Amino acid sequence: MQAVPTRERLVTEAMRLFGEQGYRATSVAQIEAAAGLASGSGALYHHFKSKEALLDAGINRQLDRRRAMQDIRALFVGLGDLHAELTLLARYLLAVLDEESQLLQIASALPTGRPPRLDDAYAALFESLYTELAQWAKSWVPEITDQQSMTLAVVAVNSLFGNRATTTLLHTPVTDMPDEQYIAEWTAMLANRIEALRKS
Amino acid sequence: MQAVPTRERLVTEAMRLFGEQGYRATSVAQIEAAAGLASGSGALYHHFKSKEALLDAGINRQLDRRRAMQDIRALFVGLGDLHAELTLLARYLLAVLDEESQLLQIASALPTGRPPRLDDAYAALFESLYTELAQWAKSWVPEITDQQSMTLAVVAVNSLFGNRATTTLLHTPVTDMPDEQYIAEWTAMLANRIEALRKS
Repeated sequence: MQAVPTRERLVTEAMRLFGEQGYRATSVAQIEAAAGLASGSGALYHHFKSKEALLDAGINRQLDRRRAMQDIRALFVGLGDLHAELTLLARYLLAVLDEESQLLQIASALPTGRPPRLDDAYAALFESLYTELAQWAKSWVPEITDQQSMTLAVVAVNSLFGNRATTTLLHTPVTDMPDEQYIAEWTAMLANRIEALRKS
Repeated sequence: MQAVPTRERLVTEAMRLFGEQGYRATSVAQIEAAAGLASGSGALYHHFKSKEALLDAGINRQLDRRRAMQDIRALFVGLGDLHAELTLLARYLLAVLDEESQLLQIASALPTGRPPRLDDAYAALFESLYTELAQWAKSWVPEITDQQSMTLAVVAVNSLFGNRATTTLLHTPVTDMPDEQYIAEWTAMLANRIEALRKS
């Protein structure tokens, strides 16, 4: 088995600790210990010049994964079946939000003085999800305006984000509704909306 | 002008500080100073036996306000106009979420070891919003099952919560979409869904 490089381990453990206990409450010594280095030795500084540089590397890794998932998204457009496409979109959007949950947790636990790159990262996340869904809506109803398709996308994405926010950000699932039940209703709602727009 | 009683001032300032900088990071001395008492004097303990008792009082005040808003909600049912009722419901639900934003902020900044009453309080908040919207859906489509109306309500409420979570919990508005634009699309989506359910 190939060992995970120290640099990688440091990023993984730092992001986990930032998410669990907060960015500010996490010390360099704790990250060193979690990554299997001597705690408090300063060995982290051979790899990163600061805690913020470590968060930066974590954000870059997220952006990388995000791009990989966007490539997968291209596989399931144009099925020509409204319900099938919406079901796949819902699963995809929830998977992306789950993949980004660490970043969202870190941001929500830092009310003030967040590194600007963190704000940029999740603004970019939401903007890309909105744009993807707006483009999809246009593929079904080409005659709607850009503002209409974007508004529809924002409402739809926020419904999936709201579902995850009760768990990821408030840390307790308020309902124990299975994902497939939630997705089925989301899909029906969006399909009814798209059908009504096509008729009007 | 009637002066605000010390007890009330302590609750107000404590909830503000808990929301802004976190429950754990807020000290009794800070709350005393913010409420105009001698900082570090222990004067707070004449009114509350602990920081947790203060949070408890803040939660009780929220529950009180929540009941008051529920009374107002009764005023605008049965208009018989689907779009008008949905628009009022959306405004009402957003107003409740805004009223509760401090509580949601406090919960999101406390990943672990939250006082159980805090979990109970926002679980009760979401459950009451889900139930209110599910009951409303049943008034328009009496033939749907309880599970169908509840699932519709959860998806719809989460869309409004997701809108506020980007601001309240992630602390930066990702889109600067005006509320009325968001509400109009949410209303259209729900109206199309209700119409489709009535037909089927």
